[in-house]
Amino acid sequence: MKAKPPDRFYVDHTIRVRYVEVDRMDVVYNAYYVDWFAIGRTEYCRARGRTYRQLEEAGFYLPLVDVYCRYYAPAHYDDLVIIRTWVKKAKRNFVHFGYQVIDEGSGELLAEGESRHIVTDTDLNQANLPDELFRLFS
Amino acid sequence: MKAKPPDRFYVDHTIRVRYVEVDRMDVVYNAYYVDWFAIGRTEYCRARGRTYRQLEEAGFYLPLVDVYCRYYAPAHYDDLVIIRTWVKKAKRNFVHFGYQVIDEGSGELLAEGESRHIVTDTDLNQANLPDELFRLFS
Amino acid sequence: MKAKPPDRFYVDHTIRVRYVEVDRMDVVYNAYYVDWFAIGRTEYCRARGRTYRQLEEAGFYLPLVDVYCRYYAPAHYDDLVIIRTWVKKAKRNFVHFGYQVIDEGSGELLAEGESRHIVTDTDLNQANLPDELFRLFS
Amino acid sequence: MKAKPPDRFYVDHTIRVRYVEVDRMDVVYNAYYVDWFAIGRTEYCRARGRTYRQLEEAGFYLPLVDVYCRYYAPAHYDDLVIIRTWVKKAKRNFVHFGYQVIDEGSGELLAEGESRHIVTDTDLNQANLPDELFRLFS
Repeated sequence: MKAKPPDRFYVDHTIRVRYVEVDRMDVVYNAYYVDWFAIGRTEYCRARGRTYRQLEEAGFYLPLVDVYCRYYAPAHYDDLVIIRTWVKKAKRNFVHFGYQVIDEGSGELLAEGESRHIVTDTDLNQANLPDELFRLFS
Repeated sequence: MKAKPPDRFYVDHTIRVRYVEVDRMDVVYNAYYVDWFAIGRTEYCRARGRTYRQLEEAGFYLPLVDVYCRYYAPAHYDDLVIIRTWVKKAKRNFVHFGYQVIDEGSGELLAEGESRHIVTDTDLNQANLPDELFRLFS
Repeated sequence: MKAKPPDRFYVDHTIRVRYVEVDRMDVVYNAYYVDWFAIGRTEYCRARGRTYRQLEEAGFYLPLVDVYCRYYAPAHYDDLVIIRTWVKKAKRNFVHFGYQVIDEGSGELLAEGESRHIVTDTDLNQANLPDELFRLFS
Repeated sequence: MKAKPPDRFYVDHTIRVRYVEVDRMDVVYNAYYVDWFAIGRTEYCRARGRTYRQLEEAGFYLPLVDVYCRYYAPAHYDDLVIIRTWVKKAKRNFVHFGYQVIDEGSGELLAEGESRHIVTDTDLNQANLPDELFRLFS
């Protein structure tokens, strides 16, 4: 199944599958897709003009409320895969991301998922993003 | 929130949080919970009388269809956490697991989740579990 | 080759090999042994009466100067392996650990290694352990 | 300390530090450098004209005999780091790699290391590389 892009702004970032990410079934181990979603969030922010590191340095964390991943086809060692990331919904105290993982060679959709995050300060108390950071997600 | 056990057979397995599992927010990084679910499946099978390794050696894999995790409270370095695992539904070609992650000291529910799996042979083609292995999940 | 214990106090801690730790060669991936050494340090401190977490909470870190690992035989998914840890040398500002990784079933030595650490404060500036913490390693 | 290149052919490959790779000291966790060495080997082979995946598909593995890493300065989340890889020595049944990890922005040497590998077949029995594959390392 070919990946169909979402109908909103998204950011594509290509990574190469690492040896450590492959398991004894000779496919990427399931938990690494959740790692890759975090790479997607990092690159989404960068593409919008601020890095996720800057967001943390400004005193904000985005801990997960939940995460979901649906697996369609396996990725293999040394494959190039695209992590596609977009924002499904954002409020000053909440961000909902969507993801696709796509085989770069064939355009095949390997997995898709989503994660919901609250905004906190660095003590993990709920917080609201100021305008200039909220702009990253809206 | 205290963890409330599911109304069916479940297996509890305690692990200690590793240094590598904690991130710069000083809490367990989100993707490790998905790793822990796999530990839960391994220990669930063992408690039912066959190891997951034996299941693979008999020629069967259980690749993920999807996984979901909901985070309630963080785990920290060196905490003891209980991974609680049960089967929500099983067919010869499909297994649906449920999970809770619980702080051993306080009994607090840290996270819960579920994962759905198809049964395949070692070439990742769909397969059906024979009686003696299906019994693990039913 | 059977593991031969070191001629000083050591701490044995058994772990079970996780699915994620095995690679497409169907053996534990090399970098996980270095992870396991950190588990060994954690359990060494606990056995000596203070946890490594307490040491960090008291304001001290033990960042690595270097690490070495020699691999003799592979570990496999679901194996029980012993991480054996001891202190080769310690000063107030320096700790040198030794490690063995042993197959619990056969007693075979799977790997051995060592790591050297400086003592720092939480800003990573060099520091000296006070008496009550230095006692853990001497 | 600035990184000084080795006096032989080497391959540089830049990666960006992932969130998961950073620990509660807010620096890259020590075991990830050993992971990065494997990325370096993969890219070294690619630059020499065959991928490491092809080498494995041709029936050869390069399991580690040992690995050493010396840490000079920490890497941080979202930093760009160069993994520099070269061959120190190679025989048909043995390869010895050298590595540097360098901060891309400053050119500072963050870590250096080496690993020794034997050549095996896919059953992990010792083997000799044929000419066309040995050429990658010589």
